[in-house]
Amino acid sequence: MPQSVAGPEIERLIQLLARMPGLGPRSARRAALQLIKKRDTLLGPLAEAMRIAAERIVVCSSCGNVDTSEPCTICRDGSRDASMLVVVEDVSDLWALERSGAVSARYHVLGGVLSALDGVRPEHLNIERLVERASDPAVKEIILALNATVDGQTTAHYVTDALRHLGLTITRLAHGVPVGGELDYLDEGTLSAAIRSRSAF
Amino acid sequence: MPQSVAGPEIERLIQLLARMPGLGPRSARRAALQLIKKRDTLLGPLAEAMRIAAERIVVCSSCGNVDTSEPCTICRDGSRDASMLVVVEDVSDLWALERSGAVSARYHVLGGVLSALDGVRPEHLNIERLVERASDPAVKEIILALNATVDGQTTAHYVTDALRHLGLTITRLAHGVPVGGELDYLDEGTLSAAIRSRSAF
Ligand SMILES: [Zn+2]
Ligand SMILES: [Zn+2]
Repeated sequence: MPQSVAGPEIERLIQLLARMPGLGPRSARRAALQLIKKRDTLLGPLAEAMRIAAERIVVCSSCGNVDTSEPCTICRDGSRDASMLVVVEDVSDLWALERSGAVSARYHVLGGVLSALDGVRPEHLNIERLVERASDPAVKEIILALNATVDGQTTAHYVTDALRHLGLTITRLAHGVPVGGELDYLDEGTLSAAIRSRSAF
Repeated sequence: MPQSVAGPEIERLIQLLARMPGLGPRSARRAALQLIKKRDTLLGPLAEAMRIAAERIVVCSSCGNVDTSEPCTICRDGSRDASMLVVVEDVSDLWALERSGAVSARYHVLGGVLSALDGVRPEHLNIERLVERASDPAVKEIILALNATVDGQTTAHYVTDALRHLGLTITRLAHGVPVGGELDYLDEGTLSAAIRSRSAF
């Protein structure tokens, strides 16, 4: 859209929206129009929520989670099992595990995975602090909840090596058929793993 | 995500993001995290751009376009052909036509199309003001740039009837094969129209 059509304020809004994940230039224009149409119910409140988030959100210096308190709500939660640390790649994985309610422990966000292609080396990840936290005598088990990708598994091996001297139990998530998953959409590796780890019915 | 995990500020941001077009609850969480990671380069500036847009944007009382000036930049542009009015359903269509550079005239945004299903009746659309503007002696042609849908065409007929007494030329966009379009993806109606309106090569 040429600047002359709708003024620099709308143009700037569209340009910034286009940089949001999941929105391209075309959907950014559509989103801008929808926001303008819902000026009082959505555009205004969203602007305010973003301002507050930008001002108050901090990265937890202990686990790498994002929150408005430091240390984060999870790190301060005394009711969680202190004998386990769940290692994740990203805060989104932490949120996914919390939603599942599968575990009530503390987390450690690496902030990525090792990747030769993307030039991500160990010093770019939050590994040093993990070794520090894992050295706490209360910690007995490290659960590696990393993605089942090549880079995720490379990272799992690296982290395991870095923690080996502590003599902890190190576990990883089970492979298998996703709940509700259809077999003929799954790759051979998953199917083989699901067969190997089969259980009594 | 339970409120306890990341604080009410992040929860509220996610809830509002989920109401943006093109984002569901899942992608809203992902978007929130990306925004938080780019706090200074994206989240903060976007909050400010939205605040400014919410404060300054007005709907043009003449044509229905959105802009930060009233009447809008297009309506104030004296270099445009005043003999034509291009009738569109939505501001997004106006923007699309402006990007194409196909016409340099003024527009009239109806704000929707007639729809029995959605209960959209003539009085819900900006038709009265269109008749008023079309009565200007300078206007000679009305170009109906409405979507080639059933509702779009119903609306085109209604608008044509409403303007008939003014004795203006009323035209509509040509049907045909989109540039770069592949024939076997097109419906029969489009193909028939493209054959009927064929031109010398
Ligand atoms: Zn924390
Ligand atoms: Zn206007």
